[in-house]
Amino acid sequence: MSIATVRAGSNIAFIKYWGVADETLNIPLSNSISMTLADAHTTTTVAWDETGALQTDIFVLDGVAQSPARSQRLTRHLDILRGLAGVMWRAWVTSRNNFPTASGIASSASGFAALTVAGCAALGLEMDPTRLSALARRSSGSASRSLFGGFVEWEKGSSDADSVAVPLYGPEHWDLRDLVAVVSGEEKKLSSAGGHLLAKSSPLLNGRITHVGGWLEEVRGAIAGRDIHRLGPVIELDALAMHSVMMTSSPSLLYWQPGTLEILQAVRRWRQGDGLAVYFTIDAGPNVHLICAAESAPEVETRLSALRSVERVIISRPGPGPQLLDEHLI
Amino acid sequence: MSIATVRAGSNIAFIKYWGVADETLNIPLSNSISMTLADAHTTTTVAWDETGALQTDIFVLDGVAQSPARSQRLTRHLDILRGLAGVMWRAWVTSRNNFPTASGIASSASGFAALTVAGCAALGLEMDPTRLSALARRSSGSASRSLFGGFVEWEKGSSDADSVAVPLYGPEHWDLRDLVAVVSGEEKKLSSAGGHLLAKSSPLLNGRITHVGGWLEEVRGAIAGRDIHRLGPVIELDALAMHSVMMTSSPSLLYWQPGTLEILQAVRRWRQGDGLAVYFTIDAGPNVHLICAAESAPEVETRLSALRSVERVIISRPGPGPQLLDEHLI
Repeated sequence: MSIATVRAGSNIAFIKYWGVADETLNIPLSNSISMTLADAHTTTTVAWDETGALQTDIFVLDGVAQSPARSQRLTRHLDILRGLAGVMWRAWVTSRNNFPTASGIASSASGFAALTVAGCAALGLEMDPTRLSALARRSSGSASRSLFGGFVEWEKGSSDADSVAVPLYGPEHWDLRDLVAVVSGEEKKLSSAGGHLLAKSSPLLNGRITHVGGWLEEVRGAIAGRDIHRLGPVIELDALAMHSVMMTSSPSLLYWQPGTLEILQAVRRWRQGDGLAVYFTIDAGPNVHLICAAESAPEVETRLSALRSVERVIISRPGPGPQLLDEHLI
Repeated sequence: MSIATVRAGSNIAFIKYWGVADETLNIPLSNSISMTLADAHTTTTVAWDETGALQTDIFVLDGVAQSPARSQRLTRHLDILRGLAGVMWRAWVTSRNNFPTASGIASSASGFAALTVAGCAALGLEMDPTRLSALARRSSGSASRSLFGGFVEWEKGSSDADSVAVPLYGPEHWDLRDLVAVVSGEEKKLSSAGGHLLAKSSPLLNGRITHVGGWLEEVRGAIAGRDIHRLGPVIELDALAMHSVMMTSSPSLLYWQPGTLEILQAVRRWRQGDGLAVYFTIDAGPNVHLICAAESAPEVETRLSALRSVERVIISRPGPGPQLLDEHLI
C-alpha cells in the first residue's frame, strides 16, 4: 500500500525561530521552544503513483488544486523523500487544515510535519521521530517541532542530523491555552521563509541571538515549574525582540496592523490593571497569540472577543505528536 | 532689569537620543541629529525676584499654575542658573506652548531651551549658544539641540563642556516639512526622562549604538545633498530601532497605539504604491511625524487627515534658534 494519512498539530513558539545559519538545510541561528497544538492541525494524505502515470505531483489544499508555483515547496520536499526511497514516483497529496489560512497559526509547521510523516509512511520508510524531525526541518524549520507532542525544543545543532527537535514534556504536563486573536484576514506579502534570509540585515539580530540562551533556560524552567508568571514575561520579550529584528531588517518587515497594537495594549492593561494572568506572543503576521492557564481562558476569550479589531478567536490546548489515521482524504 | 522672554522652537530628531552614559549630566550614549521647528515653539518669561519675597519658584504653564511636584524639574534647572550667578533669588516663570501638550512634539526641548536662554538673559549672564546648549542639556537632553536653528547635531562628548549641539545648516538650507499626526491625546505614563534610564536593560541597545555612527553619517550626507530618498530610509530605521530598544527594556515600554500602526502602514503604502516621497519617524509616544519636502506636504496632509485614527495634523517648517522678545508674558 503506497498511501498514508497523517494528522499533525501546528505549534506556537515561546522562543522563536528567526534567521538561518544554513539556508539550504534550514539550520537556525538559535534553539527555539514551542507547544504543539491539539486543536489546530493539518490532515494530509499522500498517495504515491507507482504506475508512473502522473507526470507531476498533484497538491490539493483545503479542496483547491494548487498551481505549480504554489506546489513548488511541496515538490521540493517530496524530491527529498523520493531520493531516500530511491523512487521516481509522483504523488497525489490532499491536505486539509482545520483552521483558516493566514489566521496566525503556522500552517507550514503542521502541514510539512504531516506531509513528511505521511509521505515516508506511504513509501514504507521506517524512521524514528527524530529522523522525521530532521526531514521536516528541510521544508519548514518550525515543522521540525511538530514531530513531537506537548512542549518541544528544537536544538539548532550544526548538521542535518543533529538540528532536530526533542520533546521536553508531554501535552498532559501543563494545561495551557493558546488563544489566537485573528485581526486581519489579509495574506502576508512575504512568507516567513523569505524573511529568515533577511534577519542578518538587521542591526539588532546579534543582540537577540546573544541573549536568547538565557531566555531558553528561563522558558525551560517555567515549563518545568508550570509557572505562567515566569513564562509570560520572557515570551513577550522574545516576541518583541523578533519583531524588532524584522522591523529593522532591509527591507523592513512590519507585520503589525492597528489591531495588533489594540490587543498588545489590552493584554498589558488586563494584566497590570486587573491581575489577569495572560501574556502575548506574535508570529510572523499581524495576529496575536494569548497564552494563559486553562482556568483563565474563558475570561480571556470573553475580553478578547469584545475588542473592536478581533475578527475571531481560535483556542487550542497542548496536543499530541503526529498520528497515523486509517481513513484517507483521497 | 531681571526679566526676559525667549521663544524657542521644538525639534524633531532624525537620529534619536535614547539612553544616557551619565545620568546626572545627561551625557548621551550617541550623537543625535534634529531639525529645529519654526511652527512648534515655547515662549517663556523668567522674572527673578530680587526682593526675596518669593519663597519658591512659581511656574505657570499654558495659563495653569503648576504644583510643586510638577515644578520640580524647573526648580532644579533654575538652581543651576542661580549657582552660576551666585544668587538665591526665586523666579516667576510663565510659559506658553503654541502646540498641545502630549501632541508628539517635544515640549521639554523647546521649553527648557527657552527657559535656559530667558533665565540666563534675565540674570545678565553672558553666554554663547554653545555654553547655553550645555546648560539646556542638563535639564532635557533634546533641549540642547533647540539652541540652534535649522539642522543640528548634538555631539555626545564626554563632559559637561563638550556634550553640546553644533549647527550643521541653517533653516533656509532645505525646505522640509514635519507633519505630526496626532493619534491620541492621552498623556504617556512614563516621561522619556525616566525611559532613558531603562535603555541599558534592553538586549537590543548595543546593536543600535554600534550602528548609529553609520546612520549619523548617512543623515549628514542626506541633509548636505537635500536628498529625501537618502534621508528617509535611515530615519525610519533609527526610529524603529529606538522603539525596539524601548519595547524590549525591562519594564517594556510600548508607546505605540493602534493609530500608530495605521499611519506607519499607510506611509509605506503611499510611498511604495503611489511613489509619494514621505517617510516617518516616531518619538517617545504614539504620534507619528511624517517628513517630506515642502512640495509634497499638501498631498501628505490631505491623505493623513483622511485616516481614521488621525485626530489632527500639525505642520512645521525648519525654524530659527531661540529669539529674545521685547514683550513679556508676565
